[in-house]
Amino acid sequence: MNSFGRLFRLTTFGESHGPALGAVVEGCPAGVPLDEARIQKALDRRRPGQSALTTARAEADCVEVLSGLYEGKTLGTPIAALVRNTNQRSADYAAFGEKDRPGHADAVWRARFKHQDRRGGGRTSGRETLSRVIGGAIAEAFLARQHPQLHTVAWVSQVGPLKAPPPETLPSRERVDAHPTRCPFADCAEEMATLIQTAKQSFDSLGGSVDICTQGMPVGFGEPVFGKLKARLADALAGIGAVTGVVWGGEDMLGDIGLSGRRFHGYGGNTRGEGQGGGEVYGGIQGGLSNGKALSLRVYFKPPATLGEMAKAGRHDPCILPRAVPVVEAMVSLVLADLSLQTLAFPHAL
Amino acid sequence: MNSFGRLFRLTTFGESHGPALGAVVEGCPAGVPLDEARIQKALDRRRPGQSALTTARAEADCVEVLSGLYEGKTLGTPIAALVRNTNQRSADYAAFGEKDRPGHADAVWRARFKHQDRRGGGRTSGRETLSRVIGGAIAEAFLARQHPQLHTVAWVSQVGPLKAPPPETLPSRERVDAHPTRCPFADCAEEMATLIQTAKQSFDSLGGSVDICTQGMPVGFGEPVFGKLKARLADALAGIGAVTGVVWGGEDMLGDIGLSGRRFHGYGGNTRGEGQGGGEVYGGIQGGLSNGKALSLRVYFKPPATLGEMAKAGRHDPCILPRAVPVVEAMVSLVLADLSLQTLAFPHAL
Amino acid sequence: MNSFGRLFRLTTFGESHGPALGAVVEGCPAGVPLDEARIQKALDRRRPGQSALTTARAEADCVEVLSGLYEGKTLGTPIAALVRNTNQRSADYAAFGEKDRPGHADAVWRARFKHQDRRGGGRTSGRETLSRVIGGAIAEAFLARQHPQLHTVAWVSQVGPLKAPPPETLPSRERVDAHPTRCPFADCAEEMATLIQTAKQSFDSLGGSVDICTQGMPVGFGEPVFGKLKARLADALAGIGAVTGVVWGGEDMLGDIGLSGRRFHGYGGNTRGEGQGGGEVYGGIQGGLSNGKALSLRVYFKPPATLGEMAKAGRHDPCILPRAVPVVEAMVSLVLADLSLQTLAFPHAL
Amino acid sequence: MNSFGRLFRLTTFGESHGPALGAVVEGCPAGVPLDEARIQKALDRRRPGQSALTTARAEADCVEVLSGLYEGKTLGTPIAALVRNTNQRSADYAAFGEKDRPGHADAVWRARFKHQDRRGGGRTSGRETLSRVIGGAIAEAFLARQHPQLHTVAWVSQVGPLKAPPPETLPSRERVDAHPTRCPFADCAEEMATLIQTAKQSFDSLGGSVDICTQGMPVGFGEPVFGKLKARLADALAGIGAVTGVVWGGEDMLGDIGLSGRRFHGYGGNTRGEGQGGGEVYGGIQGGLSNGKALSLRVYFKPPATLGEMAKAGRHDPCILPRAVPVVEAMVSLVLADLSLQTLAFPHAL
Repeated sequence: MNSFGRLFRLTTFGESHGPALGAVVEGCPAGVPLDEARIQKALDRRRPGQSALTTARAEADCVEVLSGLYEGKTLGTPIAALVRNTNQRSADYAAFGEKDRPGHADAVWRARFKHQDRRGGGRTSGRETLSRVIGGAIAEAFLARQHPQLHTVAWVSQVGPLKAPPPETLPSRERVDAHPTRCPFADCAEEMATLIQTAKQSFDSLGGSVDICTQGMPVGFGEPVFGKLKARLADALAGIGAVTGVVWGGEDMLGDIGLSGRRFHGYGGNTRGEGQGGGEVYGGIQGGLSNGKALSLRVYFKPPATLGEMAKAGRHDPCILPRAVPVVEAMVSLVLADLSLQTLAFPHAL
Repeated sequence: MNSFGRLFRLTTFGESHGPALGAVVEGCPAGVPLDEARIQKALDRRRPGQSALTTARAEADCVEVLSGLYEGKTLGTPIAALVRNTNQRSADYAAFGEKDRPGHADAVWRARFKHQDRRGGGRTSGRETLSRVIGGAIAEAFLARQHPQLHTVAWVSQVGPLKAPPPETLPSRERVDAHPTRCPFADCAEEMATLIQTAKQSFDSLGGSVDICTQGMPVGFGEPVFGKLKARLADALAGIGAVTGVVWGGEDMLGDIGLSGRRFHGYGGNTRGEGQGGGEVYGGIQGGLSNGKALSLRVYFKPPATLGEMAKAGRHDPCILPRAVPVVEAMVSLVLADLSLQTLAFPHAL
Repeated sequence: MNSFGRLFRLTTFGESHGPALGAVVEGCPAGVPLDEARIQKALDRRRPGQSALTTARAEADCVEVLSGLYEGKTLGTPIAALVRNTNQRSADYAAFGEKDRPGHADAVWRARFKHQDRRGGGRTSGRETLSRVIGGAIAEAFLARQHPQLHTVAWVSQVGPLKAPPPETLPSRERVDAHPTRCPFADCAEEMATLIQTAKQSFDSLGGSVDICTQGMPVGFGEPVFGKLKARLADALAGIGAVTGVVWGGEDMLGDIGLSGRRFHGYGGNTRGEGQGGGEVYGGIQGGLSNGKALSLRVYFKPPATLGEMAKAGRHDPCILPRAVPVVEAMVSLVLADLSLQTLAFPHAL
Repeated sequence: MNSFGRLFRLTTFGESHGPALGAVVEGCPAGVPLDEARIQKALDRRRPGQSALTTARAEADCVEVLSGLYEGKTLGTPIAALVRNTNQRSADYAAFGEKDRPGHADAVWRARFKHQDRRGGGRTSGRETLSRVIGGAIAEAFLARQHPQLHTVAWVSQVGPLKAPPPETLPSRERVDAHPTRCPFADCAEEMATLIQTAKQSFDSLGGSVDICTQGMPVGFGEPVFGKLKARLADALAGIGAVTGVVWGGEDMLGDIGLSGRRFHGYGGNTRGEGQGGGEVYGGIQGGLSNGKALSLRVYFKPPATLGEMAKAGRHDPCILPRAVPVVEAMVSLVLADLSLQTLAFPHAL
């Protein structure tokens, strides 16, 4: 399906080589400060061609809002927005038109949908994440109004074999954006850039991981059985193209999993010296609900499958991690906006 | 919420210390061979007290089917079933009644729901997975009829720091069940059992991982944008109590993530010597859809938080991994049953 | 499907000749005063065999609550309840087993579901409304707590060709229940009873209408486009077995439809002498939302199709109108409970 | 909410005085013949200013398809389309800006949404039905491919007090469109036109009814309990702005409701001389499912509330019935498309 969320709901549309892509957001209350410029700013962070590290495609990606905003505020009606495809260059893809691209899902798609769109990736294209970023910008505007203390930051924590250290304090988005790799540690960022440049020159590609942290979380977001906060986030993040793993609790979780319960839960102090009921390792989630501490997750991405000859022609990214950062933030914001409305709907005690 | 799935849908109910727990399954077609005994057999695999390794609680967990079955077949109507709580011993928990249990979500729940059930874990209890296993047994019966070649097996692949080797061929459920740890490698299983016994004696606990593999997958299960097969599975598995990570593509994925694209995608042969477009590493999913190869995932569990004094009184499990195996299988089967119906609903080409 | 509602949701199960029927209600907040006795009382109003006018089947219909209630209050968890089938007498129906019952949907069902339940009506039976009444009782308990001024009353307004006059003031449920026909006008009720007795003796049947009124409605229940209050009620009421028409705005609406707008909207006083913007004729709904005035609807029922020889054997009702009254009330209460939560979820202005 | 349908789903957006209105349709399979011209043709039937009988607003209402169509066929991806608002003339409405329009929902809306759109009706405007007609055109294209024998026709059966006779055979859409009133009986149509002209000149308005008939219905559309075909249609039709009643079974149903069961069900021949189990009177629905006979419904509309001074300025319709015809057809087609997919998803017997 093409919709995400229950109460704060995003519906997306558009093929990468059709007239336009876009999004409709339902459920956003009236009176939330928001204008086209704010959505444009979010799209600019996702845009290809921002640096020498990414694809050479220079998509303008100008948003046009069709409904739901008036005089700088939301109307409480559906917010629809579109981005026209101006730089489609289907010809770049035409060369592959008749044979399946290695590592791509072409054969799988043809088996399912029969009719194949020879103009390019269609809905499978990474360009589809445009619609998510539009939705995320609207979700963030709502959250900024409803939960002013809440903010979400994501950054690149691994590129190829190179892992960034855990941050001592949460980096700002400005600090993350300061380097084209979106890794907030200057030395590590430089090394990552070199790796990416090398991969680019050899028409190779690199995967890695993105870390996400949300501070200022209210207590009690999520549901106890099937709509657990961690399940909602897993669904949201696993739905991003190249994601192959989602881990809660931040950078050390998979190492910590081997600890005894006594150490893990901090009875005698856990690996990071935390005391009784350390909590930090729970990644901000207990019993399926947010526990009021910082939400902390890691998402793993596989390397792009567009390589070699295909990469030469199609102008693809050698490493999508830096551009994945705003997409990851968008998905987390969409989940939190939805759970915020859900918490209103289910007061759970009268 | 308490419902899971869109077309093949499970709704669950029941508190761990109330009269009964149960499930209602909607969407299962008529004519599927299924009776109470088959559901009971699935529940028996989840039951505590199966070996010296698990909790001493000897719950009978007898299922009673209330509707939807007749003369050994499904009727096409909702299938409702319940399990009465017979061994509740709330007194065991009463000692903790007034203070929050360390590592548990008691404070979070009280903040959200106000009213707290002093009889025990309520809906948060692991006993809630009973309802999932009932749903999974019905899903499996449907899948056995609709996709006879499809079968799902899960096994314990890590306990504490001890990791099992990757299996050469898919183990049968019989082989998995042959050892109380549900690890199909005899030597490793014995070592795991020793670790668990040691943890039990010191009122400590252990986490680990479960691997899942589904063979005989049809091509094209899933949706390209928001209902990707991997997202549906992530949602399903992350919704199990102690799960802290979900990784697609099996045992080596998180190591492989550091490889260059060329090696990862097997252009020059990947780490396992697979050739061009290796595929195995995709864990059976491409472009959000099943690609017809074996579906392969790993799920990480944190160690239980019931420790020390609390563990002495409450008869909890030192390691839930062995009993998590049928729950993991149930969740995967529920997702696949739902996607099977969805594939029927969306033929995608006329 | 077998579920009703979005946030306050009822899932039903059970065949008329299986072990039990029942319901699961999700979304009811914790702390709402409710016990088994209150649900039983609602079921008793629906029970057959209450008077000489209805079917001779004397079903005990004892409810058992399985979850969600504790110490006289809701827990905020799913509320599951069942009623066992004790007086099934499938033999009564066996005579019809091999041929389709005239006026019944037997052939239609067989075409769709293939497998046919030879024990009786299965899910098509009017006995399915048991589950709705359980759901309605829970919805009413919630509404009584959340909107204490709100109450819904339904009554029989037509039996066969005989129409009751419009009431001057809203009758109480006690007044409605005072006569077995559930028509609150003594003379008319007696005439209706005579009509029904006559129909019963000749194994014939009668249809008619039920009027519903909800007083104390909050302003703004409903949604402007697809979830209009009138659409939600239409869906709810048209889903009751024999309903063939739903009209908003009470007893005169279909006559008033022929008036000019100026008279209809009361610019010069409408048919009931109401003034400018009369409102009463809107049935309490404007622009898809409740306008704070009494909600007023009429529902038309066709006569039962169980007639002649079939009626002799199967002990069916000659006129279901009196027993439909609590079912109609239940469906209206379920819609209002759902919209109450929806209004919380969508504050619509920040 | 702004979405309609479960599997074949329409999401709408747009305010009457914002930049654009539009629709996104999900669930339509690939390969269905459809182009922009076909959607435009459907919109032209809804367009105001088609004759002297309707509003003088001459909206061009040109559709632009943004996604989902390629080379004259659907792609299986979401179909998004918009219509820009070119003739908004908010000034016409500005005069009413500060006081509530009598008979309109202004006060109700302000109570719910706080923020009020001073540019006009916003989402409440009848202009919102544009989006429904776009959705209906796509649904019809799908139905034409999947069920070629199925077709739906609606026509005006009452204007003010004047009722058209029941048609002997189903009129074609061409015959319905031949007269600006969309009543297929020439004499009656002329009388209706005169009534409407008179109402227009005195700034008054008229309600009435629309009849709908679908021929070529497959057997078994709908669900037995909550998703009954009649409930789905009631929801769909009651969601149209001025609808105040929905009756199944065509023109005589509310008269027939007073008949005894024996006559109603045709044991001795019903009012139309039909024999045993007449069926025609069931309006094509039994047990909640389509029975393969023609689907037959009537929908009642109240007269528009825009009258007198308000009507002079705002250029509103004295009678919306003729323009409601394509909207009614659109809603029926959307329901049938959704149920068609649902029938595929729930084969109900294996």
